[in-house]
Amino acid sequence: MDLMHAIKNRRSIRRLKAEPVNNDLVDTVLEAGRWAPSWANTQCWRFVVVRDALMRGKVAETISPGNPATDAIRNAPVTIVVCGELGRSGYKKGAPTTDKGDWYMFDTALATQNMMLTAYSLGLGTVAIGSFDASKVAELLGVPSNVRVVLLLPLGYPVEEPTPPRRKELSEIVSYDRY
Amino acid sequence: MDLMHAIKNRRSIRRLKAEPVNNDLVDTVLEAGRWAPSWANTQCWRFVVVRDALMRGKVAETISPGNPATDAIRNAPVTIVVCGELGRSGYKKGAPTTDKGDWYMFDTALATQNMMLTAYSLGLGTVAIGSFDASKVAELLGVPSNVRVVLLLPLGYPVEEPTPPRRKELSEIVSYDRY
Repeated sequence: MDLMHAIKNRRSIRRLKAEPVNNDLVDTVLEAGRWAPSWANTQCWRFVVVRDALMRGKVAETISPGNPATDAIRNAPVTIVVCGELGRSGYKKGAPTTDKGDWYMFDTALATQNMMLTAYSLGLGTVAIGSFDASKVAELLGVPSNVRVVLLLPLGYPVEEPTPPRRKELSEIVSYDRY
Repeated sequence: MDLMHAIKNRRSIRRLKAEPVNNDLVDTVLEAGRWAPSWANTQCWRFVVVRDALMRGKVAETISPGNPATDAIRNAPVTIVVCGELGRSGYKKGAPTTDKGDWYMFDTALATQNMMLTAYSLGLGTVAIGSFDASKVAELLGVPSNVRVVLLLPLGYPVEEPTPPRRKELSEIVSYDRY
């Protein structure tokens, strides 16, 4: 699929089918994440692919009440749990080098965007879910303390084709030579 | 350009030509950033397009000593300074909703990945520079205190075609149903 087509037409899909997703497609999505750039090539991202329905149900329960994406985790056959290893991205010789501290949120997002675009190009829907109890998911999946659970990314065939939410105009987000 | 081709073949380019880059191409890159998804569609990203050579020189001086990307800022005709407005992404009714606090790093990275892929598809090189004095750049560009300077993204025609740095195998970054 054409890159710009994917960038402009990918939507967040909260209604996903239970229809199985072939392992090869999941691997293609993970492969796209793998090829993201990262701080000094540290590649702090880790992906836990949750297929087990019982575990998906437990993970869905950690989502903040009222979040319409909860059913996406329950229904879709796969959820990729995006994690970031702490103390790698943004560090040099064990110490953070910028005012942002750990850059694991930045690097996991670079990988996530590759995965969301690729899912769309394969006819799959995703929605990035950040509002959930990350420490509870870490406990459920046995994520070690030096790794942070960042995002839930359910993956499945879309039921809906939502219209794009309004984007700010370029003039609202771009300036030249000064802010 | 094909999405997966862009994902797999984009490289960080630190040697960029001084050759001018057409405004339309810069706008296409910015447009790609604009279409990224974001927390509750908050779109906290702001892009300052620095073309002025004197300003580029000052911005280059804020980069950590020894960073090979410094010359990229000096040489390339354009640097996009990626900023994030604080207190939007990851918040609900003014309060952070997750253990990560502000998600501006995550959302600006989603937009950045769109821009880096699009730059590559247009024949342009970029390198994401995070290691620099962000408060100094904020001062130079007049960035207000509720907005954080995140990244320097020089944009120009590439001199080099680097080989890809080693990526971890999928088996090193992926697990199933448990971490």
